[in-house]
Amino acid sequence: MSKKTDNMTEEELNARHAEKMKKKKAARDKIIATKTIEKGLTIVHTGKGKGKSTAAFGMVFRALGNGMKVAVVQFVKGKWGTGERNVLDKFPDQVSLATMGEGFTWETQDRQRDIDAARAAWEQAKTFIMDNEHDMVLCDELNIVLRYDYLPIEEVLEVLEQKPEMKHVIITGRNAKDELVEAADLVTDMTQVKHPFRSGVKAQVGIEF
Amino acid sequence: MSKKTDNMTEEELNARHAEKMKKKKAARDKIIATKTIEKGLTIVHTGKGKGKSTAAFGMVFRALGNGMKVAVVQFVKGKWGTGERNVLDKFPDQVSLATMGEGFTWETQDRQRDIDAARAAWEQAKTFIMDNEHDMVLCDELNIVLRYDYLPIEEVLEVLEQKPEMKHVIITGRNAKDELVEAADLVTDMTQVKHPFRSGVKAQVGIEF
Repeated sequence: MSKKTDNMTEEELNARHAEKMKKKKAARDKIIATKTIEKGLTIVHTGKGKGKSTAAFGMVFRALGNGMKVAVVQFVKGKWGTGERNVLDKFPDQVSLATMGEGFTWETQDRQRDIDAARAAWEQAKTFIMDNEHDMVLCDELNIVLRYDYLPIEEVLEVLEQKPEMKHVIITGRNAKDELVEAADLVTDMTQVKHPFRSGVKAQVGIEF
Repeated sequence: MSKKTDNMTEEELNARHAEKMKKKKAARDKIIATKTIEKGLTIVHTGKGKGKSTAAFGMVFRALGNGMKVAVVQFVKGKWGTGERNVLDKFPDQVSLATMGEGFTWETQDRQRDIDAARAAWEQAKTFIMDNEHDMVLCDELNIVLRYDYLPIEEVLEVLEQKPEMKHVIITGRNAKDELVEAADLVTDMTQVKHPFRSGVKAQVGIEF
């Protein structure tokens, strides 16, 4: 509250508030009324902060709760714990899962194997994106693969451009390429403000995995 | 890849990559080895971008998948659709849900009722935060309530300071107060880079609700 409100009575505050909220609601209703297009969205979660994959999974779970069919392709191996998997398992008829053999991992140090795994994952993702079965496709950590040039960005952009009109595609990972941000409908940068690692706290069940 | 790599053979590229990854892995292993503290975290998702509540729900769902007990308190009415609810319903023995009567909403324009609802929601949240039953408590959109000074921030900070050691508390909403950011262990600002509303796209099932 601003200083200005300090001398107001509770009644005046309430009246003032009601007036303000009324205006806000009117403005909001007006904006929403202009939004009439329904279409599949290309959504990018990037940035150095936490929550990129977690928010993507939040969308996936919500979509599942809404009865939608969802495909999840994992471009980095071993990133998910059993937590995500146990939730996905609750919707066996709605989920297609592709985990990519070795996938990309800090453990391999084998560039050619990573490139092959990325290619295999992408071929699978492409099928899910282009089909008429799935409503939503999550390409988890695809940005990392693109960043290392394991896949040509042009190929990804081409598929996004040709995807069925109502298909939602979510792409996560740091360092999203500019061309992808350009092509996307919704881009959020998860910005790290504070991280407990800095004070010696280790990764914990339910938080990190 | 940098220009420098243009003249390298595939073999040289692969060898260089293996070396680089080996170093990265060693650095990463070293960092992780220093992280030994396990404790309940206070987590804040703020910012104007999308994904604050969605990432929080992602954490909630993952925690449920890991067998944890979770309480969810909704400080803004009508924000969740059936999607979230249908997922939570899959874990009936692990979830406590508190939706706050009218809660805060653009529809009421009734300040006193909002204050009362905020108080009721907070009393419920406090119980969940202080008990020894729940592993994680999500206070969805608590920041909005704090922002309007419907609840004194001091009261929230006091509870966070006294909470059981292993309890995780997630607080979402725009305009997180500085004191809360200060008190939190992990803070992410969801920064809006691009939003489809700008091009006339309306809120859609699976994306917005």
